Amino acid sequence: MRILILGGDGYLGWPTAMYLSRKGHDVAVLDNFAKRNWEVELGVEPLMPIRPLHERIRAWRETTENDIDLFVGDLTDYMFVEAVMAQLRPDAIVHYGEQPSAPYSMIDQRHATYTQVNNVVGNLNVLFAMRDLAPECHLVKLGTMGEYGTPNIDIEEGWIDIELNGRTDRLPFPKLPGSFYHLSKVHDSHNIMFACRIWDFRATDLNQGVVYGTDTAETVLDSRLATSFHYDECFGTALNRFCVQAVLGVPLTVYGKGQQTRGFLNILDTLQCVELALLNPAEPGEFRVFNQFTEQFSVTELAEVVRDAGTQLGLSVQIENVENPRVEKEEHYYNAKHTKLLDLGLQPHLLSTTLVDSMLQRIIENRERINPTLIPPRTRWAPQQATAPLSRP
Amino acid sequence: MRILILGGDGYLGWPTAMYLSRKGHDVAVLDNFAKRNWEVELGVEPLMPIRPLHERIRAWRETTENDIDLFVGDLTDYMFVEAVMAQLRPDAIVHYGEQPSAPYSMIDQRHATYTQVNNVVGNLNVLFAMRDLAPECHLVKLGTMGEYGTPNIDIEEGWIDIELNGRTDRLPFPKLPGSFYHLSKVHDSHNIMFACRIWDFRATDLNQGVVYGTDTAETVLDSRLATSFHYDECFGTALNRFCVQAVLGVPLTVYGKGQQTRGFLNILDTLQCVELALLNPAEPGEFRVFNQFTEQFSVTELAEVVRDAGTQLGLSVQIENVENPRVEKEEHYYNAKHTKLLDLGLQPHLLSTTLVDSMLQRIIENRERINPTLIPPRTRWAPQQATAPLSRP
Repeated sequence: MRILILGGDGYLGWPTAMYLSRKGHDVAVLDNFAKRNWEVELGVEPLMPIRPLHERIRAWRETTENDIDLFVGDLTDYMFVEAVMAQLRPDAIVHYGEQPSAPYSMIDQRHATYTQVNNVVGNLNVLFAMRDLAPECHLVKLGTMGEYGTPNIDIEEGWIDIELNGRTDRLPFPKLPGSFYHLSKVHDSHNIMFACRIWDFRATDLNQGVVYGTDTAETVLDSRLATSFHYDECFGTALNRFCVQAVLGVPLTVYGKGQQTRGFLNILDTLQCVELALLNPAEPGEFRVFNQFTEQFSVTELAEVVRDAGTQLGLSVQIENVENPRVEKEEHYYNAKHTKLLDLGLQPHLLSTTLVDSMLQRIIENRERINPTLIPPRTRWAPQQATAPLSRP
Repeated sequence: MRILILGGDGYLGWPTAMYLSRKGHDVAVLDNFAKRNWEVELGVEPLMPIRPLHERIRAWRETTENDIDLFVGDLTDYMFVEAVMAQLRPDAIVHYGEQPSAPYSMIDQRHATYTQVNNVVGNLNVLFAMRDLAPECHLVKLGTMGEYGTPNIDIEEGWIDIELNGRTDRLPFPKLPGSFYHLSKVHDSHNIMFACRIWDFRATDLNQGVVYGTDTAETVLDSRLATSFHYDECFGTALNRFCVQAVLGVPLTVYGKGQQTRGFLNILDTLQCVELALLNPAEPGEFRVFNQFTEQFSVTELAEVVRDAGTQLGLSVQIENVENPRVEKEEHYYNAKHTKLLDLGLQPHLLSTTLVDSMLQRIIENRERINPTLIPPRTRWAPQQATAPLSRP
């Protein structure tokens, strides 16, 4: 299968590219390296150094004799997207190529607008280039479980049967996204659903939970093949932050009451899920949604897993509830369906103290690279006053 | 009340400004005159000549001794939006300032992207400027009934009580928008809903039906105060097109089977509805949705109303079903609730042959200005091949 991976330099894009390349697919990656600029803007770095993409691709060829094609450019540049699509005519596109951070989107007007324009226009350009140059192509789009928010009912997979006044219809599941980033994904989902309806596209919207882990069967083949581990307040997720705090010997900072519950999955399962979607494509005209996660945890439960694993390693780990920089429900019902990928054959790798143990070990090895000032939240969902332009020492 | 009207040069913005000004409110209008550029781009003109906004404002002062303030600039320019908000600190904003045409948004990639960026970014900028400079302000945002599409269940007003597996929640009504323009309004609705949740804003989303009519108590005071009447395929609506076709003596072109049903309202009722929303503002934190229309008609029913009115005037009117340039359901269930504005006191002006009669008379007076080549549809929802850059003789 000829597969184009958008955002191929990213945390998930690069491991996906290697995984699919090793499975014998003809893989190309596309990136504009925007994420590396956002890191420079915020003064943050992944914990382990990440090699330039060109070098990673060379290392992949040296290691496995597999080629990965590279297109460098911006999805918001339609001329570029059209040229890539005309040259490649892919069978499938895996679209990770968006600004992925909720806090980044909440910094101020400029970052909110940038996030929505970057994500929505990039995705629209992919849709139009598909229409004109690859209408049979299967679009596998990364969305997020955060599109749903925390409704007081079970969360279905993208669609819901609604009965009202004696009539029924199957309609898009209502969305309560929690940041301008999550909103951008909701906008994308609506745009893609429409394209499927009018242009007979095949699309799979993977509403993904929070991914953890950095090691895949491919990343460990050579140190140059590593993918990124972020622990900063902007690009790091709660589990990463907790692990780094445990190693530093500072309290794990749980935002608010800590009863916020989300879906989680191992990076190994992201690879499996994307592959399952590719091998079992949507039908023409079908807008299909899979909820892509394997387990639900509250933030407090996550912190406790890290505390237990840390304690076994001899670390002294405290948990502290701190003021929540976000506006979100801190106690709520949460039960999200996630059977469609299991039905296709997903074999989950569940979170255990073993996995956390290996993450902690990896962090301990890189302890001297940790910058503790990057951890406290700087972006508030409801600031008391307008934010000055970023100046972060 | 100090009221800022965004899109104050438009078909509805200008009559709203005069109406509220005459009611004693302190009214300012804002526009970038983009609509006048789109007309130049497409080579179309309103049937009756429309004076420049500066002249209309002078004529309004001469006629009524009321002042309307004018801000010329672009809502996608945040510096401009911030400056206006800082100077004015309005009690309410009425937001008409968006690209309002579904066909325009479907021309090609460039017009789809432009529509979504223009509308979404303009609206985001309003939200951020409100947050920092006028957080108590009531945002009255013009959305469209087209956000809902044609579900097979009754359409509620913005929210729906859903029961699932023994639990219930009140959630945003699922949306099935039918063009990139309609999608932009859905994106706006989601962004505003979120702002209400995290910033405690008061907002009313007016999901408006198709508006008809050009005469209000204010527009008829002086010929320079007229508002626009579009009959072209891009900015004209079905009723306008049918009236012009009846006067020309050519068949009324019903797209497809003609059973497409939509909500309609008289321009006089738009003015009433906006005023009712302003006088009965949403609560802090409340995202309120009103379905703003008074009657439902199928396209065929509309054509029949025009045929009957035309026949009474001695015109010979035929109805013809033509190929539908849109991808939409041509036969469907449609029953949309619209009680909230009636509960606030709306007194509907219903469509009758009398109103159509006066529209036909007005068109007959301007018969020599009609350009028949502007009427046939040029934009297809699912074109066979990519559209070349616009060249329209």
